[in-house]
Amino acid sequence: MESVNIKKLASLLNLSIATVSKALRDSYDISKETKEKVVALANELNYQPNPHASSLRKHKSRTIAVIIPEIANNYFTLAINGIESIAQEKGYHVLIYITHEEYKKEVSLAKDLYNGRVDGLLISVSGTTTDYTHLHHLQEKGLPIVFFDRVCEDFDTVKVTTDDYESSYLATRHLVEQGCKKIAHLAISGRLSIGNKRMKGYKQAVADYQLPASDSLIVECTNDDEKDLALIREMFIREQPDGIFAAVERYAMAGYEVCRQLELNIPRDVKVISFSNLPIASFLNPSLSTITQPAFNIGKEAAARLLTTLEKKNTPLTNENIIFRSSLIQRTSTSK
Amino acid sequence: MESVNIKKLASLLNLSIATVSKALRDSYDISKETKEKVVALANELNYQPNPHASSLRKHKSRTIAVIIPEIANNYFTLAINGIESIAQEKGYHVLIYITHEEYKKEVSLAKDLYNGRVDGLLISVSGTTTDYTHLHHLQEKGLPIVFFDRVCEDFDTVKVTTDDYESSYLATRHLVEQGCKKIAHLAISGRLSIGNKRMKGYKQAVADYQLPASDSLIVECTNDDEKDLALIREMFIREQPDGIFAAVERYAMAGYEVCRQLELNIPRDVKVISFSNLPIASFLNPSLSTITQPAFNIGKEAAARLLTTLEKKNTPLTNENIIFRSSLIQRTSTSK
Repeated sequence: MESVNIKKLASLLNLSIATVSKALRDSYDISKETKEKVVALANELNYQPNPHASSLRKHKSRTIAVIIPEIANNYFTLAINGIESIAQEKGYHVLIYITHEEYKKEVSLAKDLYNGRVDGLLISVSGTTTDYTHLHHLQEKGLPIVFFDRVCEDFDTVKVTTDDYESSYLATRHLVEQGCKKIAHLAISGRLSIGNKRMKGYKQAVADYQLPASDSLIVECTNDDEKDLALIREMFIREQPDGIFAAVERYAMAGYEVCRQLELNIPRDVKVISFSNLPIASFLNPSLSTITQPAFNIGKEAAARLLTTLEKKNTPLTNENIIFRSSLIQRTSTSK
Repeated sequence: MESVNIKKLASLLNLSIATVSKALRDSYDISKETKEKVVALANELNYQPNPHASSLRKHKSRTIAVIIPEIANNYFTLAINGIESIAQEKGYHVLIYITHEEYKKEVSLAKDLYNGRVDGLLISVSGTTTDYTHLHHLQEKGLPIVFFDRVCEDFDTVKVTTDDYESSYLATRHLVEQGCKKIAHLAISGRLSIGNKRMKGYKQAVADYQLPASDSLIVECTNDDEKDLALIREMFIREQPDGIFAAVERYAMAGYEVCRQLELNIPRDVKVISFSNLPIASFLNPSLSTITQPAFNIGKEAAARLLTTLEKKNTPLTNENIIFRSSLIQRTSTSK
């Protein structure tokens, strides 16, 4: 690609290369008139500093990477909008990478960031990640990392999440209060921090209210919609639960589908509540009771912490858990 | 950031820098044993070629950029999954940039790509873009560009879309067949190619079936949900339509909300059909009749065309419109 460089600008303006370079960096050494002349020509000829050369010099790409496990998920789309709101304000570009819940892909993407492609990383880990060596490597190389939503708990940095345990306890208790006697949990598989916490909140509430507690009431969902439908359907036939607490919106929708197949009425036969950021939860048939996370604010806070560290050398990332509270919104799916 | 470079590998292995470099590039000059030794140590020490230095040399980042107008939209999330499916297969990374429907942001992101940060670009333009100079500049500099969904029609390259005109005609005709006598259109504002085509399909069907045709039946939606709700509500009160054809899923949901506010029953009082890739359209109350685009395949095809050009120097992008047909799926919202 042919490009206009500083040398060409200098020659066209009959100025030295050093003067043009300083003018473009808005240096005090250069007069206002000269700066205006240089900037005008640079704009006219579409001059752009070579990002590779300039990154090699300054180690600053003014770009942050966001690694997320999936994109067809309202939580992540809202979180990204929160991240972008801060990045835009501070003049950073945001690169979004998707792991599709694959550990291998996450490792490969992390390696791609080893040598200064971005200034910092926001990450929500994949559901199959149990080894965090690839991220420790990045941190050791000096790349600031902030976790959001799905965090690595023994990582020394800022982690931004919601109150997964408390919200899950409250969701399960809500089903009890609405009259449920046998509550099933549609759980996130694997060892994700948020999966564990949501499971614990459910189990504690079931124990506190002396409801049937059995692993047979817990469906460990995969990320294969067909498989999940089959697993949930088997559980319904085997256990005949009257309440469902879903850890993820997609699992709740699979629950709706199974109820339709089995001709079970929601909320008469089965009540359903789910973690969800679906903007149209109220238009579902029946409208879905939700634990709604402040996803936009979670993304915004994670980005704000990262960018503060990037802008101010003397404010490193502290080892801190920042927790935003979710809201329980009752709709028809849990009506008495 | 400290990193293992070729020099260090060479010194540790007691080989020349040239030999290590060739071994890493799998050159025929180097023996299998030496290659294995070099690759083993490179992996052990987490050697990564410096992306900036290597991009400067090879002008190849094995990365493609995808610029989309918004992310909270099922069409784009599916299209991205289609793009990723091909990129993953061919060993390319995908960077996603969001314009939030802002022309200025699109120009700024395009400038960011001027000097070789990526090898190619897939773009769906923002709703406020009417001047394509920034993209022509990129193309002139040698960056291959493929458009999908929202295309610039007079751009000499591959454009992948759906049959917007025909689908809109069929959606409007479907409302006529279901008994609608006064059909309103919730339209995409601005001059987007897809907005124009959807509008034309609607207008032609209204004319062919001799229904009331008036600009007062067309609501040009913005991207502000509150404003759109107010505009649609005003139109409902003023015109009392019995059919709604929405060009975008979000507008259909605003229509549902207005019907709820005005206590109008869908489909008894008003029938609704919309372009939509909502995976849970069938769980809405009432379930939504849709024009469903093959979004995954559209993304996949756009990426396949771009990557073929990147891999094979002798297959440049042709000036071609590739059109995937959408499906009309009838559900309760247009029942008689």
